[in-house]
Amino acid sequence: MASRRAASSAVAAVLSLLQLGVLCFPARQFHASEPPCGYKSCPGTQPSMLNVHLVPHTHDDVGWLKTVDQYYYGDRNDIQHAGVQYILDSVVEQLQKDPARRFIYVETGFFYRWWRQQDQAMRHIVTQLVDEGRLEFINGGWCMSDEAATHYTAVIDQMTLGLRFLNETFGECGRPRVAWHIDPFGHAREHASIFAQMGYDGLFFGRLDYQDKARRMKTKEMEMLWRASDSLTPPMADLFTGVLPNGYNPPDGFCWDQLCNDAPIRDDPQLEDFNVDDIVKRFLNVAHAQSEVYKTTHIIMTMGSDFQYENANLWYKNLDKLIHYVNAKQSNGSKVNLLYSTPSCYLQELHNANTTWPLKTDDFFPYADDAHDFWTGYFTSRPALKRYERLSNSRLQTCNQLEVLGGRRSRKGLFGEGGSDSMREAMAVAQHHDAVSGTEKQHVAFDYAKRLAAGWGPCQVLVSNSLAALSGSDAPRVYCENLNISVCPLTESSPKFTMNVYNPLGHAVMWPVRLPVNGTAYGVFDAKGSPVDSVVLPVYQASREVRGHKGYAINELVFQVQAPPLGFTTYSISLLQNGPPPTPLENKAPLSIQNKFLKVTFDPDTYLLSSLSNLETKQTIKLSQNFYWYNASAGNNAESRQPSGAYIFRPNSSTPFIISKMIKVDSVKNAVLQEVRQWFGPWVTQVVRLYKDSRQLELEWTVGPVPVGDGLGKEVITRFDTNIRTSGLFYTDSNGREVLERRRDYRPTWDLKQTEPIAGNYYPINSRAYIKDKDNQLTVVTDRSQGGSSIADGSLEIMLHRRLLYDDVRGVGEPLSEPGEDGQGGLVARGTLLLALTPPEKAADLHRPLAQSVVLQPLLSFQQGAPQSSSQLEFSGLHAALPPAVHLLTLSQWDRESVLIRLEHQYQAKESKSFSEPVTVNLQKLFSTLEIVGATEMSLGANQWKDQMTRLDWKTSSGEQPQRQSPSDPSPWDVTLNPMEIRTFLLRVMQH
Amino acid sequence: MASRRAASSAVAAVLSLLQLGVLCFPARQFHASEPPCGYKSCPGTQPSMLNVHLVPHTHDDVGWLKTVDQYYYGDRNDIQHAGVQYILDSVVEQLQKDPARRFIYVETGFFYRWWRQQDQAMRHIVTQLVDEGRLEFINGGWCMSDEAATHYTAVIDQMTLGLRFLNETFGECGRPRVAWHIDPFGHAREHASIFAQMGYDGLFFGRLDYQDKARRMKTKEMEMLWRASDSLTPPMADLFTGVLPNGYNPPDGFCWDQLCNDAPIRDDPQLEDFNVDDIVKRFLNVAHAQSEVYKTTHIIMTMGSDFQYENANLWYKNLDKLIHYVNAKQSNGSKVNLLYSTPSCYLQELHNANTTWPLKTDDFFPYADDAHDFWTGYFTSRPALKRYERLSNSRLQTCNQLEVLGGRRSRKGLFGEGGSDSMREAMAVAQHHDAVSGTEKQHVAFDYAKRLAAGWGPCQVLVSNSLAALSGSDAPRVYCENLNISVCPLTESSPKFTMNVYNPLGHAVMWPVRLPVNGTAYGVFDAKGSPVDSVVLPVYQASREVRGHKGYAINELVFQVQAPPLGFTTYSISLLQNGPPPTPLENKAPLSIQNKFLKVTFDPDTYLLSSLSNLETKQTIKLSQNFYWYNASAGNNAESRQPSGAYIFRPNSSTPFIISKMIKVDSVKNAVLQEVRQWFGPWVTQVVRLYKDSRQLELEWTVGPVPVGDGLGKEVITRFDTNIRTSGLFYTDSNGREVLERRRDYRPTWDLKQTEPIAGNYYPINSRAYIKDKDNQLTVVTDRSQGGSSIADGSLEIMLHRRLLYDDVRGVGEPLSEPGEDGQGGLVARGTLLLALTPPEKAADLHRPLAQSVVLQPLLSFQQGAPQSSSQLEFSGLHAALPPAVHLLTLSQWDRESVLIRLEHQYQAKESKSFSEPVTVNLQKLFSTLEIVGATEMSLGANQWKDQMTRLDWKTSSGEQPQRQSPSDPSPWDVTLNPMEIRTFLLRVMQH
Repeated sequence: MASRRAASSAVAAVLSLLQLGVLCFPARQFHASEPPCGYKSCPGTQPSMLNVHLVPHTHDDVGWLKTVDQYYYGDRNDIQHAGVQYILDSVVEQLQKDPARRFIYVETGFFYRWWRQQDQAMRHIVTQLVDEGRLEFINGGWCMSDEAATHYTAVIDQMTLGLRFLNETFGECGRPRVAWHIDPFGHAREHASIFAQMGYDGLFFGRLDYQDKARRMKTKEMEMLWRASDSLTPPMADLFTGVLPNGYNPPDGFCWDQLCNDAPIRDDPQLEDFNVDDIVKRFLNVAHAQSEVYKTTHIIMTMGSDFQYENANLWYKNLDKLIHYVNAKQSNGSKVNLLYSTPSCYLQELHNANTTWPLKTDDFFPYADDAHDFWTGYFTSRPALKRYERLSNSRLQTCNQLEVLGGRRSRKGLFGEGGSDSMREAMAVAQHHDAVSGTEKQHVAFDYAKRLAAGWGPCQVLVSNSLAALSGSDAPRVYCENLNISVCPLTESSPKFTMNVYNPLGHAVMWPVRLPVNGTAYGVFDAKGSPVDSVVLPVYQASREVRGHKGYAINELVFQVQAPPLGFTTYSISLLQNGPPPTPLENKAPLSIQNKFLKVTFDPDTYLLSSLSNLETKQTIKLSQNFYWYNASAGNNAESRQPSGAYIFRPNSSTPFIISKMIKVDSVKNAVLQEVRQWFGPWVTQVVRLYKDSRQLELEWTVGPVPVGDGLGKEVITRFDTNIRTSGLFYTDSNGREVLERRRDYRPTWDLKQTEPIAGNYYPINSRAYIKDKDNQLTVVTDRSQGGSSIADGSLEIMLHRRLLYDDVRGVGEPLSEPGEDGQGGLVARGTLLLALTPPEKAADLHRPLAQSVVLQPLLSFQQGAPQSSSQLEFSGLHAALPPAVHLLTLSQWDRESVLIRLEHQYQAKESKSFSEPVTVNLQKLFSTLEIVGATEMSLGANQWKDQMTRLDWKTSSGEQPQRQSPSDPSPWDVTLNPMEIRTFLLRVMQH
Repeated sequence: MASRRAASSAVAAVLSLLQLGVLCFPARQFHASEPPCGYKSCPGTQPSMLNVHLVPHTHDDVGWLKTVDQYYYGDRNDIQHAGVQYILDSVVEQLQKDPARRFIYVETGFFYRWWRQQDQAMRHIVTQLVDEGRLEFINGGWCMSDEAATHYTAVIDQMTLGLRFLNETFGECGRPRVAWHIDPFGHAREHASIFAQMGYDGLFFGRLDYQDKARRMKTKEMEMLWRASDSLTPPMADLFTGVLPNGYNPPDGFCWDQLCNDAPIRDDPQLEDFNVDDIVKRFLNVAHAQSEVYKTTHIIMTMGSDFQYENANLWYKNLDKLIHYVNAKQSNGSKVNLLYSTPSCYLQELHNANTTWPLKTDDFFPYADDAHDFWTGYFTSRPALKRYERLSNSRLQTCNQLEVLGGRRSRKGLFGEGGSDSMREAMAVAQHHDAVSGTEKQHVAFDYAKRLAAGWGPCQVLVSNSLAALSGSDAPRVYCENLNISVCPLTESSPKFTMNVYNPLGHAVMWPVRLPVNGTAYGVFDAKGSPVDSVVLPVYQASREVRGHKGYAINELVFQVQAPPLGFTTYSISLLQNGPPPTPLENKAPLSIQNKFLKVTFDPDTYLLSSLSNLETKQTIKLSQNFYWYNASAGNNAESRQPSGAYIFRPNSSTPFIISKMIKVDSVKNAVLQEVRQWFGPWVTQVVRLYKDSRQLELEWTVGPVPVGDGLGKEVITRFDTNIRTSGLFYTDSNGREVLERRRDYRPTWDLKQTEPIAGNYYPINSRAYIKDKDNQLTVVTDRSQGGSSIADGSLEIMLHRRLLYDDVRGVGEPLSEPGEDGQGGLVARGTLLLALTPPEKAADLHRPLAQSVVLQPLLSFQQGAPQSSSQLEFSGLHAALPPAVHLLTLSQWDRESVLIRLEHQYQAKESKSFSEPVTVNLQKLFSTLEIVGATEMSLGANQWKDQMTRLDWKTSSGEQPQRQSPSDPSPWDVTLNPMEIRTFLLRVMQH
């Protein structure tokens, strides 16, 4: 939030805060005079000249070829020369030498590490540089997040973490004005929307499709206004967006970092090779050429790159000379003016230019940097890491919530000291564009996973403390991390145990549970003591193989649980002596499986899916499904040397190979579920599963180890072929929120020349994709980010796994070939796709809550024996379930007395007849155990009071003037959410 | 010289100076209090502990893979990452952060470039760092000179240039106490002698024979007292000498430069990979191991290497931590104490240890770093550059002398502004251990040559101005650069011209002149108008081939000139119309050629030399000579992968291939000379030449382009085989001065295991080599530095040229294969060897002056037409020739009113019955045109008053106490030189 100082300039706002009982939180010390940071600190320019804004910057990956801490310390320089501690040391040193010098810093995850190690004197120096705008934070999240594989929940969290640190450390002068996504490999519209809602005035990035860039250069549309939401009223999600001229690098020949080899400016005439005249001439040529493709008399040049400025003197010494010698030409009539600047100062000049900008409403996927170089492989790369990240998000939200609900006993309680910080930081790091993207080296991927696992440690303690406090049950609690591979020593061995199901959603949830057991029959009872239908099935053979030596369960106990909103319930499970044997599997496929909602038929010859029916709506589609692999290009063909790799998807042929036309099956039907286990071969299996009360069909796929002994890299997809008349259209979500229409071989903003018929049609799927016609919509909800497309009408394919033999020459320097658990072989990945068939107009009603339940899934914990007699078996932190349209996005302890919440309208405008309407929630009446004594609305990033948030406004070429939405809350406590709106509040709370 | 400040502490000395009329020259401003630099500034140590002196340093080659200016600016970092401007920027920055931090800087040629570019504020900061001993200059020459291929004249000059800059800039605090030759590839005794006479207290180096090092480590003889002269009275040439433990690198695992990849100290327990405990443990192990091989409780570690400290923060930040964490162990009983230190502070502790040291009297050649890796190739590498450097030395001395003799009109005169600075700096740079050594990349070798040529430009103007002033002849003057390949447009085309012969020696000289002409007969007249015997010969066919397209002379005019000491004479040459045809060549070898001093016989079958007789002493030896080539190892044999390269000589077989057993000859005999032209094949020729009045036989060899089309690298030698009974002994000089005895397959200080029977017996020859028995001494005087040996008794071989096909893996990264003039083919080299046969006891009387006349050879300049009538045709700057034993080493303008001279006794003790005695010269009576109004003796480096020069004294293991020689000058003006003594004086002069 804003510092006292910033608040002091808005007395009214402060008063209103005080009325609500919210105090300003400890941030920076009060300064009497307002420092000249922000736009006020920008350097002067020459109105009659071409002003070249030189922006010294470093791009510091929060892990890529090295781990984040290796990068921080500058360890393992044999892999890549990069040491962030030294970068910050050096830049701060050099900034002090000349007040004209500027620097921007981006990744708060790194800055935070450095800041902790500085003494007071250095902190004072840095604070002054920040106050004077000489060191400016840009973007300011913990990392520069990936845009294709991230979920909005985690993106907002990581941004909040970074921005909070900046605010508490530097106050208003530390608040970034500009989003800076110079490296991510394609740009999601939802990211732009998030930045807009966080109060950013603009976004700059470096990578976009090469055809798109060429066109924009020609039409001077490198800079634009991005309208990033179909639902939010403009300009709420409008974001000025600029494409940088050279990616994020300096112009050719002007890179003076120690990592570059360009000639320094040799301006001593007594030494050999005096080159000032040549350099000035070349620079003027570059500047004039660049000005030809931009609209105003201001141009920006990024003077830096990956991990540059470790020895900032090299850059600044030569930039000083460049500025001096080029500007010296002004006395001879030159009209080019160089200055040290920052993206926000450049942005301010664009704003002052008072011109109009083209409007952009779609997104920047997929990204291709050449005709055969589509960066669409990373949508799927490292599927296990992508799933673990998503699961970790669920755990972090659970941890956050239970920290609030359990009160102070959560952090320090029965089971020791717990906390959410490590998990929050690990998740923030995992959002980096070389983390969850899957484009890091293998050892770094392991490090990200290790951080998430380590982060879960203190969270687990916190959760145990909190559940103990809330339930009164102090028995040790076990969390089974490996349920997905049927491993849980407690359930496998214990004849009697208790299971707590914590539901982090604001709505009640029904959820299937599968516990590895060695008994053949169990009694399962809910919190009220009522028996629950359950069944014991033999563990699927394929599952045992993927477990390695971890588990020995031969059976699985399966039942459905129901959990209250933002709360838990408790189940008791006992082994039945002399119970019936487990339900035997039948060695053939049934013609169909069905419950009261869905019916699925199978082809009697192939045992593959053949149709799907919604029994409620009485609609049926033909649906066949199989698994295929694209033969990854080895980069050895005539058209291009580009192989498939961690980033790039490039099939050698547009026709994928089928895994198997004939499959083996087992099946089972009982009171709890019906399932068909399909064996496609030694490395692909699937379970088609329909739970009794489920409106979606579960497809649990297991792929791997992908064999590459034949010398062929493989990119494994599953494909659904239907009779839906899609006319080239399909739909994918953006970071788990709004859905964008995709059209095969087409881009909305330019005349696409399609050069890769498969890879060039792939888009990221973060949580769902669908195809539809006027009657039928087949929606697939995924459990992680994946790539997918519709290559033929009626078809939808999703890439599940990739194993490749070549590096794709984008820097990672490794082929993407993840090792199996033993460090060899190949990685086995498992996941689920949830299929729903509905009329299009009813689809969102199902997939919105369904997708949220996959993202924030129940946390199961186990205790030996029966529940303690005095314990509370059921609890909800809410007075009542939230309205169906409302999602509790954030509930997190902010400081001792405050809690941060975010409430989200989870429907797009118009997508649901029932729910795409404004909805009002009373903040004071939300929580069952918390007394809300104050509430203040914040920007989405929680670093500004909402009512102090002012953004630059921009005119579009079309001339329309966006209108500011007037606040519509019925009362200070009753807050109204419009479709897709997220509102962020800081609540001052007292625990009941 | 010392600054005022230093002088102020020695009032008596100042008074004596004033009496002699010498003033202190403008140096640094006077400071009231004496700064604590030098030994006084050294950090405290722990007497009861092992003190580890950490010495932060950078080793900055003054050209190697890049040119000196490329290194300075950090240009061409694609070749090697190195930028000295940034190193100095960064180190000065980092030194300011903590007064404990230290740094040494070595190469004044670089520091000077940097200093010129600094503003007053920065200069003030640096001065303070120097005053406090935090930045200490070590070695302090313009470069760190090569020791195998340099001549002492140029070494003294380059040291003087660097030391003078330091003295004038920083005064006493800038005076280096320690010589620091960490990288040169073997160490010359004469270098140690020079350092001692310059006032250095010690020398440290890094490279010595691996067997030698192993033995010294075992016997704790890594540190010693080097008695570097057989002639000078100890301790005049005694120098404490230390072998550094790790070359000049840090111990393994402790290199924290940006160029290294060792793990930084990761001491933040909140981040991954905390490694403090491991690093401390490893460091203590290293320190203890090192202390096992040194004598005292102090050890030194060089924390730096090639071009390190460009980002000094990396080093200092980690060293700060290392010191902190290792010393923190002292509270737990650790007895290891780390400190930032310098070589001089370490040296002071060794001195304080008050122990005894082993005595060393030979030298450190040859250097081998493994059994088959003898660095003896560079003794000969780049023979043309080695010759050009030697010739340039002669030109620089001439330029210096004429600047003094011609007075102020020299610098700014008839022909414009001239000067000696460029030439002095170019020569200083050329002394670098990757310059004249021949171990640089080809483009850098070109750059060194370019600098010498460019330096000669202003010198040529100066010489012209000076000669015009001295002679009164203002006609334009032409200098023929290519006489060695018979090219000189003026003499080729002019029917009448005048030749000025300037003799830079202090004695009269007789010198053969060969001028390319197109006439057939010329009249030659000396300054008195007397005719001079001359002859016209056809240019040797082979010569024309090596000229390329430069010259078209068909004939050469040959005659002997005689020039006065330190002066010139003038010859008039006119084409004789209808003169006789040029002396025809005979197409066969004579049986002998002879003059009144020498007789040479040829084998009637092979036409090769067969004997040499001295007709005065009536002695004759059998003498056969031929050319051979060693087949350079390609690094592919079983014993070792080491190929021959720029550094390393490694013949594939000990038997060289003969070029030709049968040769073709032409010969000529006339009044001026007798010569036999021997054609050994298309790429080897030789002229055996005996001038009428010459006591030495001239062998002019031409080798190249060395053919390598057969895939074999070739190392070309000429070998003299005699019947002299050498018993394994031979003799080579050290940097052109004292001669050392060499013994085949033997080292004086350890039990040699000879592993390379040829390369392991090679030694540098700088100016002469000889073999002898009790009756006969065959002396060969060379015109450049070369490698040579005596592989069999009675034999002496000299390597002339090398062309190789492989890099020898010592960093230069190129095979030594010099291109011909057209950039292709191979380089042709030409030179002369002068042979003398004498009784051993008379050899020096001949070779001492002969070698000096080759080093300082006459400078010829030409004017069109006859001498101007009013002009002075002959001039000597001396009242009389110097005594035969005295060589005028230096005569150079120091500032407006002062002149630096060095007088040298050019004989070793005992080598000459006639001249190895003290000799006295009167300074006031030396010069014919200069009035000497004051004289003060200086240290050899001219940066200290001689009587203020105090050096640390050291005790040897043998217990002898050297006695200080009492001054023996008869009067202040009459100075006495003992054998091999050089005395340096600053003279206050007035021009007559």
